[in-house]
Amino acid sequence: MATATLVMIDRPTRGQIGGDGAPYRREDPLAPQLRVTDLAVTRGDGIFETAMVREGRILAEERHLRRLARSAAMLDLPEPDLEVYRDATRAAVAAFGAAAEGMAEGMVKYCLSRGDEELGTGPVGWAYAGPTPDFSAAREEGIAVVLLDRGLSTEVPETAPWLLAGVKTLAYAVNKAALREARRRGAQDVVFVSTDGLLLEGPTSTLIVRVGDALVTPRPQIGVLPGTTQEDVFAQAPAWGLRTEYRDVRESELLAADGAWLTSSTRLACPIRRVDGADLAVDVSLTSRMNALLTARTA
Amino acid sequence: MATATLVMIDRPTRGQIGGDGAPYRREDPLAPQLRVTDLAVTRGDGIFETAMVREGRILAEERHLRRLARSAAMLDLPEPDLEVYRDATRAAVAAFGAAAEGMAEGMVKYCLSRGDEELGTGPVGWAYAGPTPDFSAAREEGIAVVLLDRGLSTEVPETAPWLLAGVKTLAYAVNKAALREARRRGAQDVVFVSTDGLLLEGPTSTLIVRVGDALVTPRPQIGVLPGTTQEDVFAQAPAWGLRTEYRDVRESELLAADGAWLTSSTRLACPIRRVDGADLAVDVSLTSRMNALLTARTA
Repeated sequence: MATATLVMIDRPTRGQIGGDGAPYRREDPLAPQLRVTDLAVTRGDGIFETAMVREGRILAEERHLRRLARSAAMLDLPEPDLEVYRDATRAAVAAFGAAAEGMAEGMVKYCLSRGDEELGTGPVGWAYAGPTPDFSAAREEGIAVVLLDRGLSTEVPETAPWLLAGVKTLAYAVNKAALREARRRGAQDVVFVSTDGLLLEGPTSTLIVRVGDALVTPRPQIGVLPGTTQEDVFAQAPAWGLRTEYRDVRESELLAADGAWLTSSTRLACPIRRVDGADLAVDVSLTSRMNALLTARTA
Repeated sequence: MATATLVMIDRPTRGQIGGDGAPYRREDPLAPQLRVTDLAVTRGDGIFETAMVREGRILAEERHLRRLARSAAMLDLPEPDLEVYRDATRAAVAAFGAAAEGMAEGMVKYCLSRGDEELGTGPVGWAYAGPTPDFSAAREEGIAVVLLDRGLSTEVPETAPWLLAGVKTLAYAVNKAALREARRRGAQDVVFVSTDGLLLEGPTSTLIVRVGDALVTPRPQIGVLPGTTQEDVFAQAPAWGLRTEYRDVRESELLAADGAWLTSSTRLACPIRRVDGADLAVDVSLTSRMNALLTARTA
């Protein structure tokens, strides 16, 4: 098994004062790095990104960095220093690549914590590079999903931004609880539904639905996270003769769709083959093209 | 300044296998204890309690332990070993008391994390004892609050338990964001409101409203955390000639109340003196009695 690598980022935000040395340092990923009073631990008060790594390169690197900055702004965190994050994540990945001979794929997860609750110290970050599970079955055979109420209306990003809808925080306990509920119901994943009946996203993925010659995904404005992988798919769609649309999608449209996928950085495009026990059309050809595209990216 | 103390709990849940030694160990609270892959860090996937400490004793000790077990069950965590937690928290507090000469008050915060995401290791816990800020101004002069939409209906505990309403998880990013919004609006705290117009609780406190000779608090069944401090107040209420009621409370009733408080373990009973900029009646006499009771407890 490939050894994971870890880079701790001591000065992750812009203008942060501190030591004279490098803003980050390589550390042992098996050793403890965070105090129990870190706000990432005590409050889930931080943000993260997970990007795929192939042949030593971080895929969709700039999309992920931009989204990290977006999440920081939405959580009132200081502005992350994206140059520091770019360097630190590349350093973690380079070390991982060197450690993992013959490893074609992996992931890098990077975080920004608000700091230490008791000590009052400023933000800290880290980048962790490691192997990914084998997702080929999910990509090829598809996944069964259940629709679960997200409890929120699509207006809350506008009316109640403190609810952090569509912000990639470390406070993912609800996302994990929803995935446990899916397993209890015999499925592998979830599509969240707003109280006003709109499909939102998966707990760790973006929903894409094919309707005729259009690929459709819910608008980020209704409280979903912009999908880096979905954006890469949409960028390629015209070459496949498909239009792209950001718009509302309801359950009835999903059930009648010509195909549907949950996309995420490391699992890539997984076709949805069942929704609440009902079979869904799987677009085998387009799934193959999506995953071929996503695995052939070099940036 | 008093030195905090930390006890790491290696076997926090019942029947957990592990080493032969003690199920917990004293550690340096200033030293890192958690890996960046701990689920408490990566997902806020854990639970916690914060109890007040006075003269070396943990107040409302059993209420807190029972609530920890309740949260574990609601988050599908293994059942915490409450004997281990009782011993570990007392050990942290005893060490803190010894370190903090003349310290009358403090707190102990204890947690249970689901374990390590990458290593697949089982649950870990810890107990951190430390000083508390001086809350006397908030207790005596009262606090200004704003009402903020919690985005959820009061039916979700029944219809969508995966939303974890009323579970004391480590995923408190929304609670912290709401408190930042309160400060932006010139207030110190928040009372959350359900989408169906019922008052719920504060981000880290329980709401009590006095209506004539009754103390009223929202029912836990609508998605609020049972309040350990509120329960201690309610237990004493008959001796003050007051009835107690668990029932729905609306904004109009709060604004017309004979007094209202946010109660929590370390801040105790803070009278609400303003709601969204409107003055509220402060029941100075009952506030004093509440805080005298709460500071005189020895268990």
